[in-house]
Amino acid sequence: MVKPLLFGVYEQASVGVGGSPSLWTHPSSTRIHSDRLPFWINLAKTMEQGGLDLLFFGDVLGLYDVFRGNHEAAVKWALEAPADDPIIHIAALTSVTKTLGFGLTASTTYDHPFAFARRMSTLDHLSEGRLGWNVVTSYLDSAAKNFGLNYQLDPSQRYDRADEFLDVAYNLWEGSWADDAVIKDKTGQTYARGDRVRRIDHNGEYFKVQGPHVNAPSPQRTPVIFQAGWSPRGKEFAGKHAEVIFVGKGTADATRSGLAKIRQNAEAWGRNGDEIKALMSMRIIVGKTEADAQRKYEAIQSNYHLEAQLVSYAGDTGIDISRYADDEVLSTASKGHASKVERPIDGHKPLTAGDVKARFSKFTRGEETGLIIGTPDQVADELGRLAGAAGIDGYLISQPVSPGTVDDFVELAVPALKERGLFDDKPKQGTLRSRLNLKGNDRLPTEAYGSRFRQSA
Amino acid sequence: MVKPLLFGVYEQASVGVGGSPSLWTHPSSTRIHSDRLPFWINLAKTMEQGGLDLLFFGDVLGLYDVFRGNHEAAVKWALEAPADDPIIHIAALTSVTKTLGFGLTASTTYDHPFAFARRMSTLDHLSEGRLGWNVVTSYLDSAAKNFGLNYQLDPSQRYDRADEFLDVAYNLWEGSWADDAVIKDKTGQTYARGDRVRRIDHNGEYFKVQGPHVNAPSPQRTPVIFQAGWSPRGKEFAGKHAEVIFVGKGTADATRSGLAKIRQNAEAWGRNGDEIKALMSMRIIVGKTEADAQRKYEAIQSNYHLEAQLVSYAGDTGIDISRYADDEVLSTASKGHASKVERPIDGHKPLTAGDVKARFSKFTRGEETGLIIGTPDQVADELGRLAGAAGIDGYLISQPVSPGTVDDFVELAVPALKERGLFDDKPKQGTLRSRLNLKGNDRLPTEAYGSRFRQSA
Repeated sequence: MVKPLLFGVYEQASVGVGGSPSLWTHPSSTRIHSDRLPFWINLAKTMEQGGLDLLFFGDVLGLYDVFRGNHEAAVKWALEAPADDPIIHIAALTSVTKTLGFGLTASTTYDHPFAFARRMSTLDHLSEGRLGWNVVTSYLDSAAKNFGLNYQLDPSQRYDRADEFLDVAYNLWEGSWADDAVIKDKTGQTYARGDRVRRIDHNGEYFKVQGPHVNAPSPQRTPVIFQAGWSPRGKEFAGKHAEVIFVGKGTADATRSGLAKIRQNAEAWGRNGDEIKALMSMRIIVGKTEADAQRKYEAIQSNYHLEAQLVSYAGDTGIDISRYADDEVLSTASKGHASKVERPIDGHKPLTAGDVKARFSKFTRGEETGLIIGTPDQVADELGRLAGAAGIDGYLISQPVSPGTVDDFVELAVPALKERGLFDDKPKQGTLRSRLNLKGNDRLPTEAYGSRFRQSA
Repeated sequence: MVKPLLFGVYEQASVGVGGSPSLWTHPSSTRIHSDRLPFWINLAKTMEQGGLDLLFFGDVLGLYDVFRGNHEAAVKWALEAPADDPIIHIAALTSVTKTLGFGLTASTTYDHPFAFARRMSTLDHLSEGRLGWNVVTSYLDSAAKNFGLNYQLDPSQRYDRADEFLDVAYNLWEGSWADDAVIKDKTGQTYARGDRVRRIDHNGEYFKVQGPHVNAPSPQRTPVIFQAGWSPRGKEFAGKHAEVIFVGKGTADATRSGLAKIRQNAEAWGRNGDEIKALMSMRIIVGKTEADAQRKYEAIQSNYHLEAQLVSYAGDTGIDISRYADDEVLSTASKGHASKVERPIDGHKPLTAGDVKARFSKFTRGEETGLIIGTPDQVADELGRLAGAAGIDGYLISQPVSPGTVDDFVELAVPALKERGLFDDKPKQGTLRSRLNLKGNDRLPTEAYGSRFRQSA
């Protein structure tokens, strides 16, 4: 049976976005004005009117300074830069939208869980439960250096810290205030029953937090937990915590087998792995005709610049490709540097600088590159086919041209998806967790790891 | 010559607000719904339409748990609780207002300057320069315990850390990106000139931060710096950094002499102390007639509860007044606890518990209690007189009844103030710094301490 897919948009609070970093130079793009609200309000309203589910923000905490050993090319190309803090964007957009969901990428490596849990509770309150959190542990040495370290913690330490960070956050969100604590009784002069609010007294390796949480329970309490790590440890973490997996580009087979491992890990935590949703990163160029789509593709290709891609490659992998001749084999430059996607971006085959340049010289369609080009029918068919083949529940669409990509998707692709039963056209409402059809409806389900922190009734 | 005053509103992202903590029980109050946006949008729009200058949020990072040694009474009375994070409120309100300024209270004691500077730059961008920052060092032991400490750092260490925090923040805001760095040149494929963006390489006692700042320069770069500390060290800090002083309630004479000291401290930093603005905390009950004002006062008094005031007193001073008989003299309970206002709240006279209870049993008008009651003419006259006597530039109005107080102020007091030339009725626009008529217009003035971090042209 065909089931409707979920559709979100991947964004960054930057001029240049990962995946299509130089495309702010496209004549239709207004991203150089993305430091002002109209750019974002326009996007959010287009998405909401089009019935899309989720505006998701990626994030980085430093500049891409591996290429040529400094930040100059990253700044020239606005490569994931400037990196404004997307929590501000999401908060600003909650007051001009009613039903759109939001996903925030935020790192457990450089923040404090008490302050972070407080910000998230506040945002979940004001958005009336429309918030998701993509848990990341960060991957740039430049970020570590902005927070007092010389190099990053190694990936295993970062995940240990992340696990403890989640323990503190769950305890604040789920455990500190009982369901019957807040009674809002004006005549009885009681906002909440003090004996139903408790300290958490966490005393761990990385954090010591007394509590109580200073926020009353928000509609979802714990925001919807997203995760994107793909290393063995990342998949363990996902099996324990994730309700939604954000899957990078890759073949249907690789995606399906990676997700199977995460689902298997979830079973070890007493969860039903099949209830974890997966959204795949995708770029879509849709035209009314094949010729129209091809024209759009060519305009994109002519504003797609290799150097920007190489700056991005260098930052993601830690390999300063500028120092290699085309026939030299690449090797990781700095020990302990984990690549963005936590897997060798090119598998295990020895790669030369020339191979990488050839790959990134063009915006190429295909499963491995995460690009679909075609008419509405072609796009809808391919989205349906790939979802089935990869075992995913929907897509996070990256915008090669912004504004433009989402407008085209809503105008052209959505009707074709609806015809096929691949797009849910019921009016959208409620919390993000309920909207994504996740187990538990508004709150974490009983068997979630985070639910262990709840007070008994 | 009469000059127009500045008017802001003091708020907290809480149900109970400091100064009138139990008044969410007033029949007209909707504060129990202040966890949703309509409460705040209504306030912000009323202020903007009324031509007020600034919505200012106080903040705390823990519950008031001194009274009876636990948090139960604080939760019952919603005393500065729940404490949502007001940066989310300000961000949410930027997209539904055009000209209103915002003030955020944020502590330098528990945050990291790189992350904080990034959030502030983002908010200054999206608000188009409408942001102020009230620099505080925190005063609750309960907050320290939420961030891994057993007790607070002593006040002198907190200010040392604050000074270094400001150095890092100024360097990121003022020094990292030159004025000519961002060129947004699409055809030239250059967002910003990499050689005009520099690292800050800060290596101090509390922080080590490489940079560059990941945000492009925002309209004000450094948000307008507010400060409220009144201890000798607080006044030193204010002389060095503050553009606006937030003055608590107190007599005109005490205010004038305290401000004179701050202005004198500013001269030592090469600043003109007279350019520092001062806003005084004030509660205003205005009615069409004296009888009308009196009726409003009585409704407030009957929802003003002593226990909530005592919970507040205990948290502010560190003295658990619940443990004292009425005839016992109070003394500070925990060593190293600094009172909220950084001065003995009652001067140097030995005070008994009974004295404090008598004082807080009523909502009393007067300079020392910061409460004005009267007709529009009476209120306007008193605001004008007190401003002259205390040497201040305007007021931050606290709301005994919300909604209500600000609505009354705009409807009744503002016309009377305009008649006297005490309210600027020019249309409001521009950055907060320009709107408050601060030196430098949009940016910190040349002689500001923070301007020392700028790159030469």
